[in-house]
Amino acid sequence: MAILPSFADQWLLSRILEASGSAPIRLRVEGGGDISAPGAAPVATVLIRDRATLAHLVRDPEIGFGDAYMDGRIEVEGDLTRLLEAIYQGMERASKAGKWLSHVASKWLDVAQDNSWHGSRSNIQRHYDLGNDFYKLWLDDQMVYTCAYFPTPQATLEQAQVAKMDHICRKLRLQPGESVVEAGCGWGALALHMAREYGVSVKAYNISREQIAFARERAREQGLSDRVEYIEDDYRAISGKFDVFVSVGMLEHVGLDHFAEFSDAIHRSIGDTGRGLVHFIGRNYPAVFSRWIRKRIFPGGFVPSLEQSLSVLEPKNYSVLDVENLRMHYAKTLEHWLDRFEKSRQQVMAMYDSKFVRAWRLYLAGSLAAFRGGHLQLFQIVFTGAGREPIFWTRDPIYATDAAELGEPVAQEVREKVREKVRWTHAMS
Amino acid sequence: MAILPSFADQWLLSRILEASGSAPIRLRVEGGGDISAPGAAPVATVLIRDRATLAHLVRDPEIGFGDAYMDGRIEVEGDLTRLLEAIYQGMERASKAGKWLSHVASKWLDVAQDNSWHGSRSNIQRHYDLGNDFYKLWLDDQMVYTCAYFPTPQATLEQAQVAKMDHICRKLRLQPGESVVEAGCGWGALALHMAREYGVSVKAYNISREQIAFARERAREQGLSDRVEYIEDDYRAISGKFDVFVSVGMLEHVGLDHFAEFSDAIHRSIGDTGRGLVHFIGRNYPAVFSRWIRKRIFPGGFVPSLEQSLSVLEPKNYSVLDVENLRMHYAKTLEHWLDRFEKSRQQVMAMYDSKFVRAWRLYLAGSLAAFRGGHLQLFQIVFTGAGREPIFWTRDPIYATDAAELGEPVAQEVREKVREKVRWTHAMS
Repeated sequence: MAILPSFADQWLLSRILEASGSAPIRLRVEGGGDISAPGAAPVATVLIRDRATLAHLVRDPEIGFGDAYMDGRIEVEGDLTRLLEAIYQGMERASKAGKWLSHVASKWLDVAQDNSWHGSRSNIQRHYDLGNDFYKLWLDDQMVYTCAYFPTPQATLEQAQVAKMDHICRKLRLQPGESVVEAGCGWGALALHMAREYGVSVKAYNISREQIAFARERAREQGLSDRVEYIEDDYRAISGKFDVFVSVGMLEHVGLDHFAEFSDAIHRSIGDTGRGLVHFIGRNYPAVFSRWIRKRIFPGGFVPSLEQSLSVLEPKNYSVLDVENLRMHYAKTLEHWLDRFEKSRQQVMAMYDSKFVRAWRLYLAGSLAAFRGGHLQLFQIVFTGAGREPIFWTRDPIYATDAAELGEPVAQEVREKVREKVRWTHAMS
Repeated sequence: MAILPSFADQWLLSRILEASGSAPIRLRVEGGGDISAPGAAPVATVLIRDRATLAHLVRDPEIGFGDAYMDGRIEVEGDLTRLLEAIYQGMERASKAGKWLSHVASKWLDVAQDNSWHGSRSNIQRHYDLGNDFYKLWLDDQMVYTCAYFPTPQATLEQAQVAKMDHICRKLRLQPGESVVEAGCGWGALALHMAREYGVSVKAYNISREQIAFARERAREQGLSDRVEYIEDDYRAISGKFDVFVSVGMLEHVGLDHFAEFSDAIHRSIGDTGRGLVHFIGRNYPAVFSRWIRKRIFPGGFVPSLEQSLSVLEPKNYSVLDVENLRMHYAKTLEHWLDRFEKSRQQVMAMYDSKFVRAWRLYLAGSLAAFRGGHLQLFQIVFTGAGREPIFWTRDPIYATDAAELGEPVAQEVREKVREKVRWTHAMS
């Protein structure tokens, strides 16, 4: 009598393995059979606790895996991140033929999401208003929840988040007295950094109530409330004229069908003469965003290809000056987050429950796997109005550690900038 | 009796001024009326020698102006480049509403051109086989006919062309012993530079007979014939496997409808694991390429927007690592070319005729005006296969003038590279 279920198990397991693109993993049903792809040794084992879960995995591998892992109906023996890397790689290999089909699907799925004014507010609050105490457990001390910039792989997360903010300010060549508008400001660290270190004034928008409250409190503590204004509103509500537009990690929440509104918000703020930077998670080609992550973690999320993202800039005749891909920096950032998260596991458990812990572990490990394997990218795009001179003659000043080494005109610029910074710091104290 | 023609002149002139977007220029008919836009003082005067030319200008301003200037039926009093800048700016202002319509038009016009295997050969030979002696008069000593990279605006054209070649090799982080394929190699300078300075072997393709002959001769002179192979053939004929793909200033000749073939050529050469760089003239949004330039100078030319150009990379799952816009460097390059061209005017006149001189002056001045005004851009895109580690951890090594200043892991890389370069140079001598 044991033979029939075993045959059924084998057949179901082989279907699941096939859906993973025959990834080098082992699948095992508790108290039943197991399977692994021929060839390379399995990197980890997926233990499936019951046959209902097995059947769900066959019907819908992505949601089936995510929800069962969250519930504890699936356990992973071995390294979760490496398992997911192997599965993503296998799935990409298997889906090569269907790649352009998924472009169409991604458009459709995006429409099916609600990224309207009202929908965005509910989507964003569901994620970012989980409680500042939760995020404090595993983010850096300034609560920066976007890809960091590691000058070397050995830098700390705290150093790398400051370096990221400086990298952005240098690319934009912020000058004291200029005005900046920020779309999606998180807990407000970048706006404070720009005002404090570069002497600009900032108007920063966000629809997460908890983040805005935290940001305002920090601005007060640092005596920057007069030059950094946090506004609890949608990017579509941005008003006023500015020298610079910046948005770090928000485009992922806009949705393809709302890119034109995002584009309009940029153009309303900086017109044909301003400059700007958008920093966002992207991909190598258009594809569907993880359905499980949208269901459980980021409702309304959409990750564009670089080509898709340019529909924000080209209709407004903006010149793209610089695109940098920081994919491995996001992998490194996620290593830090996942490590800190695991170290705070008990506290998170006390705040929520084991389902929450497992869902967030899967989300962080899955994101790490996707950046490591090149399934996700991180793009920073610098742009200006068409008629303007570019921000720099060459990019050397962004990387200059000693202005004396540069040619005279460039050195001049850098020296002037340093002088202005010193002047400003004195004026502040 | 003089009143009627004068009224007709005024009406025709006002139509032409309107087509220029009311640019700050003066239009004058020889022995007749003149007109200029109200407001700003005219930057230069267009003198129209006869009424047939005036009528042609109304019917088809672009071809009408280009051909009449070439024939001497139009003279420009004042600075030709500044005049063209003013006209381009006015036309862009005037055509803002029709921008996306012209996207459709640009697709159609591209189809109307012949960039097939046979068509490309005839298009390319018409331009590049004008005679090496002609190009020697106004290009740098290595005959590099693409945008240079000026470390400072004061660098000479010769320095800037060498710096451009180094900039490309640094971005690609070429290592001794690697293999490179180049699509569209001009007179061969980059291939020689890569082999000589970075120790790689290069297979370089070009369908211009005169350029290939010149390049082979230079390779022989420099003793590099064993490591640089010049092949007189189309990019579609590229065969073999390589570490690196490079194409500088050739995408402009491919045509939108052949981007997929260009994409295939890249993927055949470097597969999913190689890296590459494409350097090309682009624009901020899709538009029609100058019809006059295609008629008289570059048959088959097509200049894509950045978004359009990504259709070369995204279908192959390549990761874009770095995009740099060198627009002002092309303006500077063109200033040098135009200046040298004007100084060689008598020699060019002796080789060809005054029509030829005037057509080329208009082409060089028009290109300079377009880059200055931001109507054309120059993009360098670096990309790799999706699974690969990025070429650099940060871009610092591209800009490093002293490795000691960089963090340890980066310094290590740079030192190793310098050591390898020295080793190689010794092995060569």
